[in-house]
Formats: sequence, C-alpha cells, structure tokens
Amino acid sequence: MKELTLEQLIDRALLEDAPGGDVTTLSTVPEGKTITGRFVAKEDGILCGIDVADAVFARLSDKIKFDKKKEDGDRFQKGDLLALVTGDARAILTGERVALNLLQHLSGIAARTREAVEQVAGTGAKIVDTRKTTPGLRFLEKYAVRCGGGTNHRFGLSDGVLIKDNHIAAAGGISEAVERAKSSVPHTLKIEVEVETFPQLEEALAAGADIIMLDNMSVEDMKKAVEIVAGRALTEASGNMGDRDLRQVAETGVDLISIGALTHSVRAADISLKF
Amino acid sequence: MKELTLEQLIDRALLEDAPGGDVTTLSTVPEGKTITGRFVAKEDGILCGIDVADAVFARLSDKIKFDKKKEDGDRFQKGDLLALVTGDARAILTGERVALNLLQHLSGIAARTREAVEQVAGTGAKIVDTRKTTPGLRFLEKYAVRCGGGTNHRFGLSDGVLIKDNHIAAAGGISEAVERAKSSVPHTLKIEVEVETFPQLEEALAAGADIIMLDNMSVEDMKKAVEIVAGRALTEASGNMGDRDLRQVAETGVDLISIGALTHSVRAADISLKF
Amino acid sequence: MKELTLEQLIDRALLEDAPGGDVTTLSTVPEGKTITGRFVAKEDGILCGIDVADAVFARLSDKIKFDKKKEDGDRFQKGDLLALVTGDARAILTGERVALNLLQHLSGIAARTREAVEQVAGTGAKIVDTRKTTPGLRFLEKYAVRCGGGTNHRFGLSDGVLIKDNHIAAAGGISEAVERAKSSVPHTLKIEVEVETFPQLEEALAAGADIIMLDNMSVEDMKKAVEIVAGRALTEASGNMGDRDLRQVAETGVDLISIGALTHSVRAADISLKF
Amino acid sequence: MKELTLEQLIDRALLEDAPGGDVTTLSTVPEGKTITGRFVAKEDGILCGIDVADAVFARLSDKIKFDKKKEDGDRFQKGDLLALVTGDARAILTGERVALNLLQHLSGIAARTREAVEQVAGTGAKIVDTRKTTPGLRFLEKYAVRCGGGTNHRFGLSDGVLIKDNHIAAAGGISEAVERAKSSVPHTLKIEVEVETFPQLEEALAAGADIIMLDNMSVEDMKKAVEIVAGRALTEASGNMGDRDLRQVAETGVDLISIGALTHSVRAADISLKF
Amino acid sequence: MKELTLEQLIDRALLEDAPGGDVTTLSTVPEGKTITGRFVAKEDGILCGIDVADAVFARLSDKIKFDKKKEDGDRFQKGDLLALVTGDARAILTGERVALNLLQHLSGIAARTREAVEQVAGTGAKIVDTRKTTPGLRFLEKYAVRCGGGTNHRFGLSDGVLIKDNHIAAAGGISEAVERAKSSVPHTLKIEVEVETFPQLEEALAAGADIIMLDNMSVEDMKKAVEIVAGRALTEASGNMGDRDLRQVAETGVDLISIGALTHSVRAADISLKF
Amino acid sequence: MKELTLEQLIDRALLEDAPGGDVTTLSTVPEGKTITGRFVAKEDGILCGIDVADAVFARLSDKIKFDKKKEDGDRFQKGDLLALVTGDARAILTGERVALNLLQHLSGIAARTREAVEQVAGTGAKIVDTRKTTPGLRFLEKYAVRCGGGTNHRFGLSDGVLIKDNHIAAAGGISEAVERAKSSVPHTLKIEVEVETFPQLEEALAAGADIIMLDNMSVEDMKKAVEIVAGRALTEASGNMGDRDLRQVAETGVDLISIGALTHSVRAADISLKF
Repeated sequence: MKELTLEQLIDRALLEDAPGGDVTTLSTVPEGKTITGRFVAKEDGILCGIDVADAVFARLSDKIKFDKKKEDGDRFQKGDLLALVTGDARAILTGERVALNLLQHLSGIAARTREAVEQVAGTGAKIVDTRKTTPGLRFLEKYAVRCGGGTNHRFGLSDGVLIKDNHIAAAGGISEAVERAKSSVPHTLKIEVEVETFPQLEEALAAGADIIMLDNMSVEDMKKAVEIVAGRALTEASGNMGDRDLRQVAETGVDLISIGALTHSVRAADISLKF
Repeated sequence: MKELTLEQLIDRALLEDAPGGDVTTLSTVPEGKTITGRFVAKEDGILCGIDVADAVFARLSDKIKFDKKKEDGDRFQKGDLLALVTGDARAILTGERVALNLLQHLSGIAARTREAVEQVAGTGAKIVDTRKTTPGLRFLEKYAVRCGGGTNHRFGLSDGVLIKDNHIAAAGGISEAVERAKSSVPHTLKIEVEVETFPQLEEALAAGADIIMLDNMSVEDMKKAVEIVAGRALTEASGNMGDRDLRQVAETGVDLISIGALTHSVRAADISLKF
Repeated sequence: MKELTLEQLIDRALLEDAPGGDVTTLSTVPEGKTITGRFVAKEDGILCGIDVADAVFARLSDKIKFDKKKEDGDRFQKGDLLALVTGDARAILTGERVALNLLQHLSGIAARTREAVEQVAGTGAKIVDTRKTTPGLRFLEKYAVRCGGGTNHRFGLSDGVLIKDNHIAAAGGISEAVERAKSSVPHTLKIEVEVETFPQLEEALAAGADIIMLDNMSVEDMKKAVEIVAGRALTEASGNMGDRDLRQVAETGVDLISIGALTHSVRAADISLKF
Repeated sequence: MKELTLEQLIDRALLEDAPGGDVTTLSTVPEGKTITGRFVAKEDGILCGIDVADAVFARLSDKIKFDKKKEDGDRFQKGDLLALVTGDARAILTGERVALNLLQHLSGIAARTREAVEQVAGTGAKIVDTRKTTPGLRFLEKYAVRCGGGTNHRFGLSDGVLIKDNHIAAAGGISEAVERAKSSVPHTLKIEVEVETFPQLEEALAAGADIIMLDNMSVEDMKKAVEIVAGRALTEASGNMGDRDLRQVAETGVDLISIGALTHSVRAADISLKF
Repeated sequence: MKELTLEQLIDRALLEDAPGGDVTTLSTVPEGKTITGRFVAKEDGILCGIDVADAVFARLSDKIKFDKKKEDGDRFQKGDLLALVTGDARAILTGERVALNLLQHLSGIAARTREAVEQVAGTGAKIVDTRKTTPGLRFLEKYAVRCGGGTNHRFGLSDGVLIKDNHIAAAGGISEAVERAKSSVPHTLKIEVEVETFPQLEEALAAGADIIMLDNMSVEDMKKAVEIVAGRALTEASGNMGDRDLRQVAETGVDLISIGALTHSVRAADISLKF
Repeated sequence: MKELTLEQLIDRALLEDAPGGDVTTLSTVPEGKTITGRFVAKEDGILCGIDVADAVFARLSDKIKFDKKKEDGDRFQKGDLLALVTGDARAILTGERVALNLLQHLSGIAARTREAVEQVAGTGAKIVDTRKTTPGLRFLEKYAVRCGGGTNHRFGLSDGVLIKDNHIAAAGGISEAVERAKSSVPHTLKIEVEVETFPQLEEALAAGADIIMLDNMSVEDMKKAVEIVAGRALTEASGNMGDRDLRQVAETGVDLISIGALTHSVRAADISLKF
C-alpha cells in the first residue's frame, strides 16, 4: 500500500537538499554510470525506515534496485549489512543524504523506544509517544515508535481528547469539561483528563473520564492513584518520563507511560552508506 | 522581512497536528475567551525560534499579542520568562504544541552549537553544520546553528561542491574531478575535496581545491595536514566530531570543524508554556 | 481562530471557477465600482456557512464589508435577510457563485440534519453523520451536521476504529479483530464493531467492544439488541437510515443513529444573493 | 489520457479520509492479504465514475486489478455487477469509501441528468448544467452530466460570457454591456445575456447577443420569446428548472434548458462494494 | 480585487530565487535599515506589471510603500520615473530581481503588442495573442497583450474550439469535425476552423464555423478569402505574423491577426531599479 | 535521474493550458486513435528541451513512444527531424503546445548562447548567464545555457555572494561588506564584488574578493582592470553585454562575460510538430 504522505515528504526533502540539482555529482559523475552502495550499521540498534530509504531512491530513478537485508523493527548489530542499493550512480549519490537522514533519525527513535519497552517488560505498562514530534515528520516518527515496540498516543488534536488545566478552567471545572466533551466530540473518542492531585482524580473519575493522565506524580502517588482508579479508567503516567526510572513507574500499575523524549530528543542511529 | 518557507512549514505543522480541528479545545473552551501564556525556561540555554513561535500563533488568529522578552541568540537561565502570549484562548491552546515543538528543537540546536563554539573559543576554528538535518527543517536548523554562534556549511547539493570518494572514482582521480567541477559548476562556488590520506591531500592541493575536508583524521594527522596546506586552502575537520575533543581538534589549526550531531542528534530545550 | 483548511478550499474553489479571471465582469463592470448584495432566504431552513461566504469575499478583496444578520445554526424563514455584503463590485460578482455554492450546500445539510434531530427529540438518541461525504468538503460538511444539531462520527479512518466483516474475516473472528485493534491502535480510540446478528453481537460484547453498530436491523431486532447490550456499550443504528422512520428507530433505545444521506444526498438550500 | 486534475482530487480525498492511515485495517488485516470486491448496483441507474474508482485503488497499490463490467454512461439495473476489484486487501479496504463516494455521487448526477434528457427527448432542447457545482468537483460533475446525456454550459467565469442585471446596470444598459464584452473578451466566446422581460429581450437581440437566457419565464412567455428571437440567437431557459415540467419548457422551442439541481441537489446512487 | 494566481506565481518566483535566503543581503545589510529605490525607464516603452512589482515587495514585507507614477498600459519615455519603492532595505534588495524580471518581461510584451496595434491602426483588424506563451506566465502575458492594446485569443484548450488538420482528419472531414464540436462543447464557445485552401474555406463556412483561421496565406489569398467569407464568420490571419507586414495583412479586411511572437519571442524592456 | 522540479513545471503548464480538458480534441478525435508526429526544425539551431518534450507527453499517457533523433546540445539544420512521437492522438494533440513552447524557448536560449560562445572562442573567456530569467523556469533556462556551451552563474540569491552598491553603502564600505560576508556566509561560497571604478577595484582586491564584476566598463577600462587584478581574482564583464562586441570584451582578458539577454530576451527557435 502506497503512502501518499511519504511521497510528499520525500519530494520536499529532495527539493530542499537540491533545488538546483547536485552540482558536484552532475559535474564529476558521468551519466549512465552505475554503482552499488551498502547500508551498514556502525553500532547496535533497531531498524526503522528501510522502506523509506528505498522510496527515496525510487523517486530519483526508476531503475534502482534496493535489496533489503533487514526489515523495519529488526534488531541489528554493529557491522550488519542492512541493505544494498544498486543502479544509476548520479541518483544514488544525490539521494544518499536524504535517505540516511531519514533512516538514521527513525532508527534512533526505534532504538530509544525499544530501550524503554525493555525496561518495563513483564509489567503490564505500555510505552506510548506524545505530540512532541518534529513538524512534518509525525507519521514517520509515530511509525518508528511502533517499530521500537511502543504504541501510539493520539496522532494529534483531532483524534483524541485530552483535557488539561486550561480546558478545565475555561469550562468551569472537571465535570463540566468532561460533560461538554462527551456531548460534542465524536463518540468514537475516549475522554482523557490530566490530573495532578487526588481530588482532581476523584472528580475526573466521577465525571466518567475514560483515561486519567497522572501528571508529574511521584511513584508513591502514582501507586495510590492506580489503586483509587481501580480499573475504572486507563491510567497514563506522564511528565519528564524520559528522565524517570521507567521500571519503577511501570510497577505502580499504570497502563501507559508516555515519553516525549522518544521523539523530541532523538540521537541519530549510526548507519552509513558505503560504496 | 517575511519568510515564505516558514509560512509553509507552519501551515504544514498545524494541519498535521489538527487536520480536523482541536476537538478538546473546541468542546471545552468558549469562543471569544482570552488567555495569557508565559514561555518559561526550565533549564539554562540559548534561545532560538521565538519569532517562529510568534508566527505560529499569528497564523491562528490575527488578534494575538506576542511579547518577546528575549531575542534569538540570547542566553537564558532556568526560570527566565522568554515571552508572553495573550489573546484568543482557542488559538493559543491549539497552537501551543507546534510552537513549543519548534522552539524547543531550535533552542536545543542553538545550545548544543554554543557549547561547541565555546570549546573552541580563542582558536581560529569555526563550528559549522552539515546536511545531516531533519527533512523539511533545514533552513530553520541552519538558522539555529547561527543563533548558537556557529556558521553554516553549504545549504545543500546545489550551492556547494564537495567532492568525495565516489566522485573521485567516477571522474578517474582527484585532479580530474576537480577540473571537471571547476569547468562546469558556477564560478561563484569554491571546490571542496574530502581527503583521508596525505597523498590525497597533496593531489587535491595540486588540483587547486579551495577547501580540504580532513575526514576522520587523528589530531596528529590533522596538525600535519594543516602544515602541509599552509594556507593554500581552507581546512575542515570532519567525521564524528560530535564525539571528539573539539578543543584539541581546533588547536590543530583547522579553519572549520563540521559537526553532524548539531542537527542530527538534538536534545530539545526544556521550555514550557504556562498559564 | 483561522481555519487553514478553509483557506485552501476557498482558493481552490475560486481558481476552479475563474482560472483566467471573470471575463464578463472584467469587461462590463468598471474598476472601483461598489455594490451591496443581500443574501436572502427563499425558503425556511437552518443557516450554515455564513462565515464561509464571508471568507470567500474577503479572499477577493480586503475592503469588502460583510454584515451577518444570522449566525450559523440559526433557523431562518423564507424572506429573511441573512447577510449584507458591500464593497468592490468586481470582487462581489466574481465571488458570488462560490459563496452561494458553499452556503446553499452547507445549509442544505444543516436543514436535513435538523429535521432528523427533531424526529428523535426527547428520545436519548443522537443523530450522527458518516464518512459518506463529498471529497474535499468533509470538515465543512461535518460542521454543517453540527450546525443542524447532530454530532459527528469519526472524521475518517485515522481517528476511529470501526471493525466490519472484512476486518473480522481477515483477523479470523470478532474477538481476534477486537483484540488486535485494542493492542495496536491509540488507546484514546474506542473500538466499534459492526454486527448483523445476535451471535455477532454477543461476541463483540464479549470481546470488549466499546460501540456496537447494528447494521440494517429491523426495529424489533434493534430493540432486542439494545436489551442485550444493556449499557455495556454504545449502540449505533446504521444502514439506509435516511429512508427509515427515525422516531421508531430512536425509540428502540439506541444511543446513536448514523445517516449517510445527511451528506451524500444533499438538497441545496434556496438562498439567493440579490442586488 | 491521464487526468491531472483527477490525480490531485484523489490524493486530496485519500489524505482527507486517512491523514494518519486506516488504523482499523492496519491493525486487523495482515499485510499481503488479497481480497476481491464486487461493485454492485442496488437500484437502477446510469453509471459514472467507474474509471475514477479504478484510479482511487491504483493510487493506493500498483498491484490492484480493476475489471470494469460497465462503462461510464451505461444504464445499469438493480443487481448488476459493475466492476470487480482484486488485490491487496489493505489498499482496497482503505480506498473503498473514497471510491464509493465519488462513484455514487457522479452516478447520481448522471441518473438525474438522464431523467431530464428523457423528458425532453424528441424536442430540439438540450439539457445543460450550471456553475452550481460542488467546489473542487466541477470537472467531474460536468463529466457526469455528459455521461447522463446532457451537455455542458461554460466551465466557469473564464470561458463564457453571461451578462446579468448587475453587469448591465454597471455598464449602463444592455447594449453597452454587450458592446464592452464584444470588444474585450476573446473572440472565441459567444455573448450570452440574461433577460426577464420582452423589452430586455429586444435590446439584447439588437445588441447582437449570441445567446439569450430567459430567466424565470412562464411557458407562455418563453414561447413568445422564442418566436421573437426567431433563430437570431440561441435561447436558454433558466431558473428553478429542477422543479419545472421540462417537457412543457422544451416544447416552447428553446434550444437549451439549464438546471442547477443536476449538480447542486444530488441524490447519491445506491451502489455498494461487496466482498 | 486580489489575483490568486499571481500570489502563487510570486511565491514560486521568490522561493526559486532564494530558497535559502539572500545570503549577500543578510550578511551585509543591517536589519531594520530602510532604503528608497526608483524604477526608471532606460528606453521608451509601454508599462505593464507595475502592480505585479508592487505585489512582489508586499510579499516580502508589510511595511513597504510602493508609489506608482505610471499605470499599466501607459506609454513611458527614456528617463521617466515609473515608481518609487521605500522601506525595509533587505526586503527591497531581495525582491528587486524578481520584480524587475516580471516588469521587464511584461513591458516588453506590451511594447511589442503596441507596435503591432499601431501598424494596423485605422483598419478594423485586431491584434490577438496565441497559446505560444511561457509556461506558468500565461495569465500575465495575456494581460500584457491587453496592456499593449491587443485583445486575447482563447486562454487555453478549455475555453475555445480551434479545429486543425488533425482534428479534421480524425473526425473524417471539416463538416464532421464542426458538427461533433457543436454538439458536444459548451454552447458558449464559438467554433473556429483552420483552413489553408479555398475549398477548405468553403467547407468550413458551409459547416457553420463561427471563425475561420486563414493559415499562412498570401495577402492576395487572404483578401480573396475575406471576400468569400463576406461577413458570415470572423476571419483570423495566422502563421508567422511576427515576420509579416501587418498593415498589408490588416488591409485584406481580416478581423483578427494572431501573432505568436508577441509572447514567444520577447525582448525585455530596459527598466532599472536605482537607489 | 528524475527531475522533480520538471515534473511540477509540466503539471503546472498542462493545467494552465487545459484546466477543463482540451474541448476541441475531446469532441473531434475518437478515444483510442493513434497518431505519429514529427518534430522538425524550420531553421538552423541548437537543440535544448527534447527530453522535456518527451516528459510532457509521458505525463499525459503511459503509452506514448518518443523517439529522439538528436540530443540536447546538438546542432541541427533547417529540415532536420528532431524526434518522433507516436501514440494516443488525444494525448499528443493536447500536449503539443506545451511541449513546443518549452522546446522552442529552450532551444532559442541555447542558440543565442552558442552564438555568444562562438564569438569568444579561443579567448579564455566563458559566457555565463544571470538571474534575469523567467520566473519558474530558471533551472531549465540555466540548463539551456549549458546546452549552448555557456556556464552558469549562481543559481540565485542563496548560492552565491554578489556585493553591489547598496550592500556596500549599507555595510559602510567595500572592505566592511566583504568582511561581513566572509564571516557569515557559508565558506563554500566565493565573494564577488561589483565595481565601476579603479579605486573600487583596488579596494575590492584588498578586501580579498574572489571575483570582481566589472560593471559597464569600456573595453579599455576592462583591459586595464584585468591588468590590475593580475590573476588575484576572477574578472567578470557585465552590463548590457547582449549589445556589446563580445570578441572585443573577451580579448580584454576577462574570465567571464555575463549576459542577461541570453535569458531575458529570448527568440523562440522555429520548430514545429508535423503530422
């Protein structure tokens, strides 16, 4: 199945990088010359974006053969061959950086997510992402989180309800806010409410919230909150989770741990294209 | 002066986040309500993107007042008030995440760059970026590098010549590659050649390269290379510079140190919008 | 708050109608001439799109004054003045048809929805729309449903889960399909399952479906289904609801009645622009 | 011959429906699974949009086979198989609604047009459409009118001259308006003038109008107008023709009958995709 | 009245010229500095595009004052001041080339057209353009022709019928081609037929062509053709008219002379922006 | 290697020409009919754009065979067959004008450039273009200059530094301007300074300019300037070079002669498509 959003992103990336063509390659590499490049891992990691890399080259030439050796979501080790790309040298050299930029960024997210997922393994907690993503890359970054074993929070403001302080203040209270949301948003959406205190928690539950976001709570408070909720709603731990001990958090019994750092503070995976 | 590329980026970001509107805000916050938010630093850093944040809100409402307290490039400290945003509550809550995502990402780059710049302070070396940027954000990320005190390498493949192994192999040697580039690329562009060995260096100099990229060299080799070049070309240290001792590198006498990590492995600055 | 999607739609509509300008108006109406037009109802109805009409003219001239006499969602009667538009005659005549096309279409949807809403008044049933909308106009058509007193079903395939026969067949059964969806879609989304028989209904409930779509059921079966569900899930009546006796359907106790005809078979409201 | 405008429309429709992918299908239908769907008529009608439906699926997967059983413009009967679509299950399920929305809408227009065409069969009158179309769909809707046996009025404001009251008032009279138009619009365009009275009719003819639009006239007045024109210009009956007795109108001898309702008040044809 | 197509063109032009900003200006001209530039004619000519130039600067800064001294269509002489532009120096220097490129190109077309118009002054012949325009600039180039005193031929393939050899061959003869066109194209369009011989001319007239294009005929043949037509259709002289003696052609009595060279072989007007 | 920018340009051109389809062809040429057209030179020239023409037809039909007889950059003579295009008649007739418009325009530039190149043959001077190009066509026009044997100046404002009067005035002198540029623009760009007098020349050299633009100088002054520069910088002759004796200019010893007229005053090559 073709990804329309991906096509647009790749076009944008290629035009951003070479609005007037790749002057170095055009002047030094003869037309028609072919070449083979090898995507090689220079550290251990989790692969994400190998089909995206394929699509980048496909956009530049119809005749490039891209031969994947690993699939997205696969674990790889330093030295592993990830893919071979063969064909028109000009197209491959011109597309190299865009392909790598995406592959390294997405694999970086996948690896970071996998790490978090492993820290909570065996507890019932799921690792989820946030809306703290790079403008224009959200669908890919959320895909990378899934490749890393995480699951996705809402995609954006249109497909999930998350009631925060300001909404509560504007609506005149938690009950009022939840009620308003329930009566007007699509019935296919659950209602999530962010709480910082136990009274807020009680009020949110009473109002019928489907999900409770426990914001910046201590482990003890989270534990207590989970007990109070007692299965009446999903619980989501949130707030600088990138710097917390995820195991501890998970063992409080929360259903979800959302980590902004998965996507807002990414270290690119070290992958290179060798010829 | 208006930034056309920025307008497009902001539209894309807002539509990505809320293709069908912000259902939470629309259901809980009454039309016409106003609000004031304060951008506050939660750690020390370098500001970048404050006008971008302003532009995000301006795109959502004509009546929002954005009052900057710091300028891009300014150093800030934990607790500093960076800006006030006042106006239509719906617009501000809907734009909050996009504004923060950009502001935190760019300020993260600026801070990382400033750190590098400070490490080489007093040597003649300049810190420069690379093409290892986030697709669609390159112009902003390169701006952030400048805010951090760095300077920019070429924007992309169309505005700089960088001859690497593959170009050399395809052209049949360094001299041939340089000559071809000189005779066909715009005369306004310098010719940069990537070298890994001293014979390559000599050949590049002989061919009239304007800039020599010293790729993955030891500090000793860089020092020797700089001596060989003896001012006949600019020298650029490159290759995992994000993990190197920049002071040592700078003291070899290279003119430029290019660091991919400035933009490919960004830690978002901790800035929040409080109400 | 500005509607970015609306801006794009209006540009597209204006360029579609006059890619080379309005040759009649340009040749017959002198530059600078001003005019006043009155939007008048030629039948009773529910208003929707009056701000859209305003935006159409605003796109063609900065100096047009648009004076609304009714708001979206208001009931109007034959002969009512809905708005006055005053300003550059060329811009007003050129924009007239695009403004009317949108206003009449949206008001048509609002009226049809209001009719349905009134038929079920007093029962607990809500009238909701479907994805049977006009390509490119969904956000406006869903807005028109709200103006008519209805509520919205999911916006599209990304913000709601609706498991139908094919998904069930592909997954190997209702339980399997629900389980797969629960484990991988964002936790902010409810799971809706379409059923046609009571065994399917029982299986969907057992699998933990949040919403049950009762597809093409007789009134008796719906009543029975509602009893079986007994509040464990929301129930949605579906299937040619445009041709059914909505009161009867609503009295079965279903929570929602979704009607494709609200948006796929629209009669334009009779509104004209008089000068 | 490829339709560029259609490609854009389909992309827009698919992205509107699934900006973040089809979460239900992605979670329940395994990658690689294939499926066959049958487009079946659930009522009698006229087909329009079958190639459009094909193009929707082609956009989502290169490997879908679309096997038309009827052509656009063909009459079909309840129960008829219209087309088979076979291939990647994910792509077919994701594209289903967009394909149906277009196919049903266009076939609805075609059927309504055919009905009108049959009512005037044997008279010399042609059924034509108007600019009362859905923003963004005009080229398809005008195509549907042709599939129904109608012919098209001007596409928009740039390819036809239609002088109405306001143009006449602004120009200072019918003769002035016609003269101005004649001297400045492309000579490839005919001049049409809208008239409501006989004196206006006489003036328009005297001014050399090529086409006379008889607006909201009674059958008697139309008959008289046709006699007055006596072949010196084409005559077009206009004004709520969707509610008039078309046979009577046609028998007045008018050349054209333009009906806004063909496109502004469409009932979707009842066609389903069965698996 | 705003020109939507123009906005898009200007954005495209500015982004083409400075995808990464104007590096010279940004590095040498301080932010906030203001400047005044004078558009001065360096030869005699006809102005076209002065509002376009205004719009270019307006796109780059909200605070630029553009003070026109001449209007589009005005004759100017060497040394004349055409406009003053005052404001942000960065924006003015960055926009200068795009503004001049458009202004010089359009004024070049206007001057060339005026020349042709003057050559035929007093005869009844009109000078018209063709579809031999620069891709993306057609609406502006056709506007320039009007500024020069010419009138426009059809805008493109959708708003005019011009039957040539291939259409005739494909349809099986002139009569067949005209008949087919008449029965299916919008009734608002005239039918033009290209002829090279007298028998073709007779056939076209018999078929009811509204306009006869006399292709590549000698002056004598044109004269004869006009006599044969005798007012039954418009006559258009065509075929390398840019190299013909237009006075002679006009005196044959043709109604229109279409000249591709007006737009396909443009000499830029010599206008400069002085500071 | 595919040209993304070209794809966009072709789509724009085709939609500009036929937003509502080619009504003549659609009404007169039967679906499925095939045809062969021959691109024939009607004068001597230099070919440029033959692959562009191919791409235009490819966009309209997958089944068109385009058989080149000459390559871009080749010299052709009156009567030469340049290419054959065979396939769907509707697509070929619809695309004909767009293909020819581009081919003739680009070949016109190539021929004009070749002429200039030949005039300076044997001297060391290169013929270069400017930014005086047609908005939207710059990349193609610069390609045409290369096909004609010229080389390209900077593509635009982002990939070259050219310091003019205003920059100098704003910076406070030539040295200041050069220094500012050197310290902040990418190190891959050379610094070019425009001078009109010898003192300016000396100052620019002293400031370390890489390229000196000699603006509007007499042949004697240019000769003297070249002597002063004495190889310390490249020299570029500029200013109405389209009207100068290029041989004389070249013999002054300048390295480059930039000619705006190559692209701002283009005479379309006379090439036709015959059937």
